[in-house]
Amino acid sequence: MAEKSKILIIGGTGYIGKFVTEASAKEGHPTFILTRESTIKHPEKSKLLDNFKSLGAKLVIGDLHDHESLVKAIKEVDVVISTVGGESVADQVKIIAAIKEAGNVKRFLPSEFGTDVDHVTAVEPAKSIFKGKADIRRAVEAAGIPHTFVACNGFAGYFLPNIGQMDTYTAPREKVTILGDGSAKAVFVKEDDIALATIKAVDDPRTLNKILIFRPPGNTLSFNEIVSIWESKIGKTLEKTFVPEEQILKNIQEAPFGLSIMLSISHSVLVNGSATDFEIEPSFGVEASELYPDVKFTSIDDYLTPFV
Amino acid sequence: MAEKSKILIIGGTGYIGKFVTEASAKEGHPTFILTRESTIKHPEKSKLLDNFKSLGAKLVIGDLHDHESLVKAIKEVDVVISTVGGESVADQVKIIAAIKEAGNVKRFLPSEFGTDVDHVTAVEPAKSIFKGKADIRRAVEAAGIPHTFVACNGFAGYFLPNIGQMDTYTAPREKVTILGDGSAKAVFVKEDDIALATIKAVDDPRTLNKILIFRPPGNTLSFNEIVSIWESKIGKTLEKTFVPEEQILKNIQEAPFGLSIMLSISHSVLVNGSATDFEIEPSFGVEASELYPDVKFTSIDDYLTPFV
Repeated sequence: MAEKSKILIIGGTGYIGKFVTEASAKEGHPTFILTRESTIKHPEKSKLLDNFKSLGAKLVIGDLHDHESLVKAIKEVDVVISTVGGESVADQVKIIAAIKEAGNVKRFLPSEFGTDVDHVTAVEPAKSIFKGKADIRRAVEAAGIPHTFVACNGFAGYFLPNIGQMDTYTAPREKVTILGDGSAKAVFVKEDDIALATIKAVDDPRTLNKILIFRPPGNTLSFNEIVSIWESKIGKTLEKTFVPEEQILKNIQEAPFGLSIMLSISHSVLVNGSATDFEIEPSFGVEASELYPDVKFTSIDDYLTPFV
Repeated sequence: MAEKSKILIIGGTGYIGKFVTEASAKEGHPTFILTRESTIKHPEKSKLLDNFKSLGAKLVIGDLHDHESLVKAIKEVDVVISTVGGESVADQVKIIAAIKEAGNVKRFLPSEFGTDVDHVTAVEPAKSIFKGKADIRRAVEAAGIPHTFVACNGFAGYFLPNIGQMDTYTAPREKVTILGDGSAKAVFVKEDDIALATIKAVDDPRTLNKILIFRPPGNTLSFNEIVSIWESKIGKTLEKTFVPEEQILKNIQEAPFGLSIMLSISHSVLVNGSATDFEIEPSFGVEASELYPDVKFTSIDDYLTPFV
């Protein structure tokens, strides 16, 4: 079997970056983390970096905004995975420029890790957020860089611990608020599973220049179905409030920026059903659980058990 | 007295745009609202537009992304006020280009309506959000466009109705969560007052090429002081939980994008005290309540009374 490719991760101490870095190192890829001097001194992040080092990953001092350092770091690897945060999505044009200059990259995965932005319907501000990621896709394609776009859909950790209740940190025991009529199928995947499938994709010819879309059957459920599972686990029927779409759209209009992003993304996924309302055509995409049957995707049902 | 300048508002149906448009029309400025065809058909927004028309404002069909329509609309007015949403801040380079081409604008107010982004300390993602607005300031200055930057600080309607409690929509009656030690002075101003002072500024030579910063004394209070006022109004002492800064920074790291924006902006204002921790030097700024003593700024104390 071919040697495992060397991977550079940009954004490795971020929310999903942590899982991707860990999966890369554990899967035996020589793993490099682009690290700023300031991150090494950061109390929380330095602990993360120590953990990565203990797994065999190496720190490479550099910065997305320092072209020379970026080119130098990229020249040492075969694959670049960006997991930068939402505020840095547009800055990834700098990674694209550095990859072009370096000329050696066999695969680039820009920071996505959400809904497939080429097949999404959303109102503002989510519409612009998604467009920002789509613009990066177009720039990667225009630069002729071999790539995989990871559309893993929702992070389990963001939605499931409180069953999508934005006003509480714990799972509901009395009543639950459901956006829309709760019937649209959404997808929530455990972060470790997202990271493992992502790492498996980097050397896989089947994901070359394709969108890797996550729809494991046990993770593809409607809001109503998730609530039902929770109700059966706690042995209790919850009082349900359904928020009509018109009210959601009004709330998005009136909410502070930030909250309006969360609400409009929720509207897109949970009311429009944007994670599941299209066929994955072989021309553009592949489905992660079909591709990697050996990845044991934690089902939503199993994920919820410890929260009882 | 000179004739009142003609004002074009871009983003007039947005959260703060509504108030600015209404104030402009009521103050007797010939008021024009850049409006897309789709906005006229929008159920909620069309009602707003009808209200604006009843106040004498006129709709101008056009779009931020349609250069010709933008230049044409700008040529008809003296002043341009942008109140576009957070997702469109960077797109304001298109307004700057159109104003340059039109060549007739006496004052441009880009969309700010928050913390003074040249005097703010913040962690990501707020840092990048603030930088996006600062970049627009620099582009306006570089283009030599006469301008006023409106740093009104916090919207009362975002913070006061629930006393800054992100997990509830109503003001607390039992317990309250306070970010940091609650001692940093923040500023929360009623939206109508922000809009009125903004409109007064457009023809005012004292605000030319300056930052208009809002710090009315009755609106400049610490989280602790606001809680005290609320406690005295409801005649009850609340159980207080203080969230240490280290925990807030950790929450920001782990939160979904959107929530992380809200938390990091809150951290900047409520822990760093970024709204009040600098002197307003005449070289760069003027204070709104000093400039406009005739604007009766609704104090936080008065604002809270109806919520009892």
